[in-house]
Amino acid sequence: MNPDHYRVKAGQKVSLQDWATDDDGGYSKEDGKALLQKLEAELADWQERLYAEGKQAVLIVLQARDAGGKDGTVKHVFGAFNPNGVQISNFKVPNEEELAHDFLWRVHAKAPRRGTIGVFNRSHYEDVLVTRVHQLIDDKTAKQRLEQISHFEAMLVANGTQIVKFYLHISPDEQQERLQARLDDKTKHWKFNEGDLAERIKWPEYTKAYEDALTTSTKDAPWYVIPADHKWFRDLLISQILLSKLKDMKPQYPATSYDPEQVKIPKVAAK
Amino acid sequence: MNPDHYRVKAGQKVSLQDWATDDDGGYSKEDGKALLQKLEAELADWQERLYAEGKQAVLIVLQARDAGGKDGTVKHVFGAFNPNGVQISNFKVPNEEELAHDFLWRVHAKAPRRGTIGVFNRSHYEDVLVTRVHQLIDDKTAKQRLEQISHFEAMLVANGTQIVKFYLHISPDEQQERLQARLDDKTKHWKFNEGDLAERIKWPEYTKAYEDALTTSTKDAPWYVIPADHKWFRDLLISQILLSKLKDMKPQYPATSYDPEQVKIPKVAAK
Repeated sequence: MNPDHYRVKAGQKVSLQDWATDDDGGYSKEDGKALLQKLEAELADWQERLYAEGKQAVLIVLQARDAGGKDGTVKHVFGAFNPNGVQISNFKVPNEEELAHDFLWRVHAKAPRRGTIGVFNRSHYEDVLVTRVHQLIDDKTAKQRLEQISHFEAMLVANGTQIVKFYLHISPDEQQERLQARLDDKTKHWKFNEGDLAERIKWPEYTKAYEDALTTSTKDAPWYVIPADHKWFRDLLISQILLSKLKDMKPQYPATSYDPEQVKIPKVAAK
Repeated sequence: MNPDHYRVKAGQKVSLQDWATDDDGGYSKEDGKALLQKLEAELADWQERLYAEGKQAVLIVLQARDAGGKDGTVKHVFGAFNPNGVQISNFKVPNEEELAHDFLWRVHAKAPRRGTIGVFNRSHYEDVLVTRVHQLIDDKTAKQRLEQISHFEAMLVANGTQIVKFYLHISPDEQQERLQARLDDKTKHWKFNEGDLAERIKWPEYTKAYEDALTTSTKDAPWYVIPADHKWFRDLLISQILLSKLKDMKPQYPATSYDPEQVKIPKVAAK
């Protein structure tokens, strides 16, 4: 499984229908799950180095259609990290205060601090996706925003925050099955939102908006199109990409300001 | 293992030297770890109900001496939860902006939203602990602050946030071993702070300050003294207490605003 195969190259124009949603990388589910478990241990180790170093941050952007697997990815991929160094930010419909600012204001406030990993469950990309499909902004504004996003992301990268963006790619049939599953299981009813059906019939419009959003892929802030019909493969591929990103960042345990061999710990009594 | 045995009763004056630090609840380490794994699955289930309901929150306060196990508790106990519904807040030495406000201002801003669990790794209690030991405040101010804390916590409880406070109780010898381990292992050097030794020799002063802080234990915002020399028992006991708290809160999956049997999911094509 070569992660690079799923990366959108800078300048590449993506046609999503050419990208598989049900790819499994040639793994069986069983082998994939065993490999994921191995990766989780490695990821935890690299996350600790990142935290200990305290100089670089990672920003993960998760985008997908409804039922595309964002919440599942948060739970299964980021659930394996030390929660002390991970911050999940959910961006919902903007509130009055947020709308009173530029569209990057609320996301900038949630940028991860150095040493940590920030996960955006939905993100500033909603401002060129749902807004565009519902014609709240015109094409010219969308184009401007995509440029502003590129500049914003380049600034973060230049200041020590690495960015990785995942589009979780599912088929219309897979979405149907997942929405139906929410209706069939009482403990999942709360996840079903009638409004999702109105979004679903705009499938081609979302496809077009996503294809434009994916043009913001650069070497330093790449988009990956993650085949996401198989949840286990989605988790495996994302973990693999994160691991190679963390290794590339080469976080180092910091030098000590003291000589560990000279330190004497004083004796004390409980009372 | 009766969690109530470790709870500070309202009005109780605690003498910490009477509380064991090495209690293991009668479990072997192996049995304890197996039980913890079972509890984690149950906790995940109750956490989802809390999140789905979206009406109540839980605030966890973690306090301990240096190397007392706060970070380990975050990693091992809260790492088992869905990160989407957990927010960890680390309170370090207050910055200039924070010092320009009352001592509850920065913690109030991090109160958990409904449906979620907020974890304070250190907390507003530092303002009656480290400040007191270093005589930055006098006894009268400490007493006032303890009252203000009680009122603040009662307000949170009355507005739907349940509070559980854990003091991780270790012995001086256990602290010494843990600090030494940080010196002996290169990958742990970054966790060692020379300033911790100056705090260590103030062991009796901290004991007294903690004993006073524990008097804020009430039925609705109880303190638990967690024997924390054995990390596995610490994690087990805290998980047990959290589970019984979540069950007591009786979170319910919300009623639907639609009839699941009447919903038809429209067919759509990928292009």
